Amino acid sequence: MISVEEARARILAPLRPLAAEIVPITEAWDRVLAAPVVARLTQPPADVSAMDGYAVRAADAVVGAVLRQIGEAPAGHPFAGMVGAGETVRLFTGSFVPAGADAVLLQEDAAADGDRIGVNAAVPLARHVRPRGQDFAAGDTVLAPGQRLTARQIGLAAAANHAWLAVHRRPNVAILATGDEIFLPGDPIPAGGIVSSNSHMLAALVRAAGGLPVILPVARDTPEAIADVAGTALGADLLVTTGGASVGTHDVVQAGLARHGFALDFWKIAMRPGKPMIFGRIGALPVLGLPGNPVSAAVCAVLFLVPALRRLQGLTGDAPEAVRAVAGAAIRANDHRADHLRAALGRDDSGRLVATPYQKQDSAMLSLLSQAECLVLRAPHAAAVRAGEGLQIIVLGSEGI
Amino acid sequence: MISVEEARARILAPLRPLAAEIVPITEAWDRVLAAPVVARLTQPPADVSAMDGYAVRAADAVVGAVLRQIGEAPAGHPFAGMVGAGETVRLFTGSFVPAGADAVLLQEDAAADGDRIGVNAAVPLARHVRPRGQDFAAGDTVLAPGQRLTARQIGLAAAANHAWLAVHRRPNVAILATGDEIFLPGDPIPAGGIVSSNSHMLAALVRAAGGLPVILPVARDTPEAIADVAGTALGADLLVTTGGASVGTHDVVQAGLARHGFALDFWKIAMRPGKPMIFGRIGALPVLGLPGNPVSAAVCAVLFLVPALRRLQGLTGDAPEAVRAVAGAAIRANDHRADHLRAALGRDDSGRLVATPYQKQDSAMLSLLSQAECLVLRAPHAAAVRAGEGLQIIVLGSEGI
Repeated sequence: MISVEEARARILAPLRPLAAEIVPITEAWDRVLAAPVVARLTQPPADVSAMDGYAVRAADAVVGAVLRQIGEAPAGHPFAGMVGAGETVRLFTGSFVPAGADAVLLQEDAAADGDRIGVNAAVPLARHVRPRGQDFAAGDTVLAPGQRLTARQIGLAAAANHAWLAVHRRPNVAILATGDEIFLPGDPIPAGGIVSSNSHMLAALVRAAGGLPVILPVARDTPEAIADVAGTALGADLLVTTGGASVGTHDVVQAGLARHGFALDFWKIAMRPGKPMIFGRIGALPVLGLPGNPVSAAVCAVLFLVPALRRLQGLTGDAPEAVRAVAGAAIRANDHRADHLRAALGRDDSGRLVATPYQKQDSAMLSLLSQAECLVLRAPHAAAVRAGEGLQIIVLGSEGI
Repeated sequence: MISVEEARARILAPLRPLAAEIVPITEAWDRVLAAPVVARLTQPPADVSAMDGYAVRAADAVVGAVLRQIGEAPAGHPFAGMVGAGETVRLFTGSFVPAGADAVLLQEDAAADGDRIGVNAAVPLARHVRPRGQDFAAGDTVLAPGQRLTARQIGLAAAANHAWLAVHRRPNVAILATGDEIFLPGDPIPAGGIVSSNSHMLAALVRAAGGLPVILPVARDTPEAIADVAGTALGADLLVTTGGASVGTHDVVQAGLARHGFALDFWKIAMRPGKPMIFGRIGALPVLGLPGNPVSAAVCAVLFLVPALRRLQGLTGDAPEAVRAVAGAAIRANDHRADHLRAALGRDDSGRLVATPYQKQDSAMLSLLSQAECLVLRAPHAAAVRAGEGLQIIVLGSEGI
């Protein structure tokens, strides 16, 4: 058995970010940027007014002065002339400040009478003027690659005059559930059968992590059936199987994959839930063999599949983020396997996160897993923890997982 | 001017969750559940084995006993007979425990010699047996409506034998940018022009919040042009405009909307950035008029548009979640307008969030906004805060916003 950290390192080692594709900016949200976004223009393109008001020479704009309005410059319609001594031009938020002017008199501080504009408040130099390039200048790198694009960053890329962005291709993930007992939701279920939940959970999780899931037909528990279905997925970026990964006679996944030249890397991790997890390759295709148990499959997916999808998309920071919290209840000392306790999450009066593991940790309880707000990380041989002591957690749910 | 809280309450008051639609479970991830999910079967459907091993009568399974194997029951193939005294049946993880048996002998604790199975460890009653219905029973409500479905919940719904789920329809949001100075990214930009970033930022934000954005053609700064474009969006669930919301002569949005019978609710909020925000209705269509300034538009969208989209999707909890943090630097006392400082976010040694507002808070700086990790909430007339004192923040970024 190997450690969680070694398993993750071995899974990630061969993975490289997928190549870039070009998408319109309207499709780039939540994708991972593959190339720097360099501003193609300067923003603002000229000194602009931050308010509705009047372009003035600050030296002229003393209380009691009366300026002569020689024009107006709505946003998008710059004033072509020059503001001379004693002159002013009507401006609006975003208007270019005309040549000669060096400040903006607020409209609330002006008394307009035809083209005569009384000054009711002194205007310091550069007041209410946003200088050219305050936001960014042409040639500035406004967005670095390797990050998932938020709505605000999409706005910035648009402002920098990009209609197209280079993003890493989404990983195609083939999902292969195995088992004689597995049937699709709503289909007739014979005695001894259960509903296939792992395929659907994993497909949703792949989507949440930015991949494109393909749910393959369920393979019955023979090497031939598994080989047939797996053979349709050799062009994927990642093949994920569930079930048939443990030590029993009916663990035929490896036998099925072997027919395509599967090279095993490891198949046991010192962790709970989820010890029997296969990792290996068919040629260049990475294959992750998750346990059939839904809770084990979900925890392994959080610890190994999500990081793999992050790596394939070019994101930096591959391990799930561990966050500090305090224990809401005592936790006993751990054995030799890293544990991942399903837990509720709250906050105490001082704003600290409080994680309280559920009493029941049976790895078949999907209903409890679906309610869990975090996983409490328990290292191998971790000492007992009293309520109020610190621990590390992985927060669930916030990214749709 | 009205408060942020009153503005949000007035925006949300008329909004009702959109009707349900039926989607396949493969499309239900990240959608908001509109009806309870009631289990259609019991899980597990019978007492099942939690491990690979042998079904035994616990009373027989004393150290040194030798049992007779009378059959095997792979997952999906229940054993039809009965386990009598001194008998055993080979099981695998997930196998139904046959009638007569009441515990599972681990395969590691058994010595198999043909059909003779030696017992190397005593087996307590019910050992390694998951009882029927441990996860859920037919008729149990396993998922309540009003929540956005995570991957784990999709798995649970599948396990409960649902191929289809009722989810609230996604809100159709029409986005109308106005302004003579606004041009699409990559299009020729004349002198005085800038690139339309708000439409793209808002479209991404609508997606992040679960809506379906439609970017309308840019309307020039005349009531006629705005009325023409707005008239194409009267069937949307929400119309969002940007620009032309302030007090200048060129604020023609209201004049344009008036041609469709726009009824103004309010247009000034005591907040910064973003004071001039319009809210009203054209018939039953809610209209949110965001400022043209990109930072103001983004902050208003976080405070008002996202809650509106949450309400329309049937989510509970409409206000953006305010989280406790401590100030990373001193913050001066606030004036009469609620402020929303763009800030970096870190953690101190004790795991507390530390929010440090940027020195520059100019509301036109989209580059800084795109980097911001949180908004520091400053109530009207809030007292000065020293570094290390507590404050409230809205975390950005985690949901793609």
